[in-house]
Amino acid sequence: MTEADHRRNDARLQEWRNRTIVPMVAAASVFLAAYAWPIIDPDLPAVWEGVCSAALVVVWALFCADYVVRLWLAPQRVAFVRRNWFDLLVLLVPVLRTLRLVQVIVVLGLVNKRATMTMRASVSKYSVAAALLIVFCAALAVLDAERGVPGAVIHTFPDALWWAATTVTTVGYGDLYPVTAEGRLVAGVLFTAGIALLGVVTATLASWFVEKFNEGQESAAATQKQMVELMEEVRSLRAELAARTAPAEPAAEEADPGR
Amino acid sequence: MTEADHRRNDARLQEWRNRTIVPMVAAASVFLAAYAWPIIDPDLPAVWEGVCSAALVVVWALFCADYVVRLWLAPQRVAFVRRNWFDLLVLLVPVLRTLRLVQVIVVLGLVNKRATMTMRASVSKYSVAAALLIVFCAALAVLDAERGVPGAVIHTFPDALWWAATTVTTVGYGDLYPVTAEGRLVAGVLFTAGIALLGVVTATLASWFVEKFNEGQESAAATQKQMVELMEEVRSLRAELAARTAPAEPAAEEADPGR
Amino acid sequence: MTEADHRRNDARLQEWRNRTIVPMVAAASVFLAAYAWPIIDPDLPAVWEGVCSAALVVVWALFCADYVVRLWLAPQRVAFVRRNWFDLLVLLVPVLRTLRLVQVIVVLGLVNKRATMTMRASVSKYSVAAALLIVFCAALAVLDAERGVPGAVIHTFPDALWWAATTVTTVGYGDLYPVTAEGRLVAGVLFTAGIALLGVVTATLASWFVEKFNEGQESAAATQKQMVELMEEVRSLRAELAARTAPAEPAAEEADPGR
Amino acid sequence: MTEADHRRNDARLQEWRNRTIVPMVAAASVFLAAYAWPIIDPDLPAVWEGVCSAALVVVWALFCADYVVRLWLAPQRVAFVRRNWFDLLVLLVPVLRTLRLVQVIVVLGLVNKRATMTMRASVSKYSVAAALLIVFCAALAVLDAERGVPGAVIHTFPDALWWAATTVTTVGYGDLYPVTAEGRLVAGVLFTAGIALLGVVTATLASWFVEKFNEGQESAAATQKQMVELMEEVRSLRAELAARTAPAEPAAEEADPGR
Repeated sequence: MTEADHRRNDARLQEWRNRTIVPMVAAASVFLAAYAWPIIDPDLPAVWEGVCSAALVVVWALFCADYVVRLWLAPQRVAFVRRNWFDLLVLLVPVLRTLRLVQVIVVLGLVNKRATMTMRASVSKYSVAAALLIVFCAALAVLDAERGVPGAVIHTFPDALWWAATTVTTVGYGDLYPVTAEGRLVAGVLFTAGIALLGVVTATLASWFVEKFNEGQESAAATQKQMVELMEEVRSLRAELAARTAPAEPAAEEADPGR
Repeated sequence: MTEADHRRNDARLQEWRNRTIVPMVAAASVFLAAYAWPIIDPDLPAVWEGVCSAALVVVWALFCADYVVRLWLAPQRVAFVRRNWFDLLVLLVPVLRTLRLVQVIVVLGLVNKRATMTMRASVSKYSVAAALLIVFCAALAVLDAERGVPGAVIHTFPDALWWAATTVTTVGYGDLYPVTAEGRLVAGVLFTAGIALLGVVTATLASWFVEKFNEGQESAAATQKQMVELMEEVRSLRAELAARTAPAEPAAEEADPGR
Repeated sequence: MTEADHRRNDARLQEWRNRTIVPMVAAASVFLAAYAWPIIDPDLPAVWEGVCSAALVVVWALFCADYVVRLWLAPQRVAFVRRNWFDLLVLLVPVLRTLRLVQVIVVLGLVNKRATMTMRASVSKYSVAAALLIVFCAALAVLDAERGVPGAVIHTFPDALWWAATTVTTVGYGDLYPVTAEGRLVAGVLFTAGIALLGVVTATLASWFVEKFNEGQESAAATQKQMVELMEEVRSLRAELAARTAPAEPAAEEADPGR
Repeated sequence: MTEADHRRNDARLQEWRNRTIVPMVAAASVFLAAYAWPIIDPDLPAVWEGVCSAALVVVWALFCADYVVRLWLAPQRVAFVRRNWFDLLVLLVPVLRTLRLVQVIVVLGLVNKRATMTMRASVSKYSVAAALLIVFCAALAVLDAERGVPGAVIHTFPDALWWAATTVTTVGYGDLYPVTAEGRLVAGVLFTAGIALLGVVTATLASWFVEKFNEGQESAAATQKQMVELMEEVRSLRAELAARTAPAEPAAEEADPGR
């Protein structure tokens, strides 16, 4: 495979991504709804429960297809698999429903990816959105795992939401807590999300305060502007000097290559 | 509506804000007192309770009036509503007493707004004040929501304050916790405030340490000063050159426009 | 009082501080020991308990004397009282033993004050020391407040230490927690210390990473060095120009004042 | 001992370190396995338990030998002991098994030391790895300390892992908590690790955001580049000036030393 092919495929992979973002997010939303409904409303008629599970399977198939296509388009397949190990994990292990929900978030995340790289405001917005989504999904997943388990203390969706909120903020009252392995796995994801969230909030504020409060930052920017001015100043100084004395001396030409 | 109108209205909106800050803060304080008193002292004579509820209604009306005036003065009404969705939410949903208390805080916040943008010290002072106020209001709101509810564990104001303190710092012992939906909503506001507070404290320290400890910052400031000097140096250099050789050559004039 | 008096008094206040640091820290240590011993060892013979309380009174008197002297030396007395409100509070309200212990820490803090302002390492060392001391004092204070109270869960010093550690780190298991007002006041001080500690740790790391990782910082420092070089370059350029053309033209002299 | 000896020994110490990293990490892994196995599987045949304890002793001996060699190679022995007090503590006090496990982590840490100093990504990777390892070791240690103790609530390895996770993230539900002194000591290490971890996560993000978002940083870098350009510009300006006027005047030569 030549270097040119690599570049072309990379471009095609990118193009595929851009085209599939909207449908993927749509599919993810369907997935979320189909996952949430039976959990929130336990006495859902069997018919609708069937519809939901069907929807889950379909969306899952879509995600798989998307993965396969991206793998096929990827310039270096091995590198692609290593870089996207998380996608694969979530797709192959059907037990990890909770992680598949995180996958949903990742997909939604893709949308803002580029934005987050450029502006502080969008980082904040994206983090808040992600946090809310993670809390909601975690509440669903933990309820799904704990409900009806003997010794479990989380039995209703409001309780699950409350637990998720106390967990992601690392408050952890301990009035509610998961007792099953799945529930604790979900909690683990929530802890991590919580620490990351705390980090993003603080870091965004810090970078903002550094810009607002630290002289160094302002003067650096000011210096930058003056630098351009000064450059012109010096250049035109040379221009004048040349204009004045060039005709008189060929020495100037000899000096030129030295520049 | 012309551009000029826009600018004039914007100025009028600003002026209105500046003029109303003092009365608004006064109204907010009355609101706080009228809200706090009946909660802290449960066996308050019915007469006084009536007075308090009346005061709450009056202040609420004032807030509404203020909102309407600002909306009317706003250059772009739609943008104004979108930007101030929180004010509207707090005004329209009378159930959200707790959020109206947060609104009180926001109003108080307006006072320091400009200050906070300029100095580190005022950011800290403002955050501490806001944190204390939020803790106090949250304690009131949670007590109001939990007291007398079967299964609730928060029954006295000292307990409510203690709970609020353990919550805003994300310690969350779990000896006390809300069980009602309203109480948990208040807790949610407290969590968020707690994370924000932690972020502000850390970020303020970070920006301060960066300034104090990092060479880059100092040299940037120093460079800035020298830059000005250098600029003069070069300019007077040109001046001299001109002074010496200008009379001899018209070439200088031709060079001028090139600058 | 003239400006000169002000300056002289300020100098004398500073000198007093420098001279009294060592004895004050010694007194504080005595205070800490005399406070800790009867609490850690409940069945201490009455004689020794008497000695300890006597020591506490003596040290308290010393602190008062120190405050009075400093007040007397202060250039502006009112400003001094306002600036040192915390010292006064701790001295005047004999109930607030816990805060007097925090006062001990403040005194110890004075020692490193100057150091902390200059280096990152000393900030870290000072914070760690302060944190350990606060945890130790808080454990003593909470045990003193809770022991023997009906319904209290903290009865032994190891338990108190464990509680203090879980609190200052904002973990807050909730297996142990204060139930008395004094105990909760101590906890409040610990929360605050915990958040501050977290902030200092993170901020120190952040300022260090910013220096280590961010190009901006290095280039700012590098620019600073080159700036000096460039300045010389330009100056000697002017020198040469002058050297070459000065004798010929008086115009140079006229240009001088313009610089 | 001459300066030259010092330098030679320092080099030899470094060389020893580089050579022993791989075997030390291997030994540490064996240690970890031999420590973990009997704890995770309580009904391990006595034979294997014996093998494990033997392995622990052997590895411990290796660590001691390594320490002695490094001490012997160190240029200043006293300084070496003071700088490596932690290693010594962990080696000499055989009770502190938990700390010896932390020592394992320190050894593993050595591998990335140099990397961490240079890149943000490696700091993150190293911290995550360290965090996971600390959580795993802490779970082992706490289980070892608590299992079979009357009144203890941590009896199985999954519970211990869950407890460690809730602790390192400072969530601290309080459904599980250590009751023995050893268990609480382990918890103390975990708290500290948790705060440090939180600090590293936030600080890394902060330094990254400062670089990405703050104008000051970019302009400082940009200025740096232009500075070099400008320098050349001015130098060649001098060159020209010299080239033009040097032959005419000996004054130039006199001016030279002044540069």
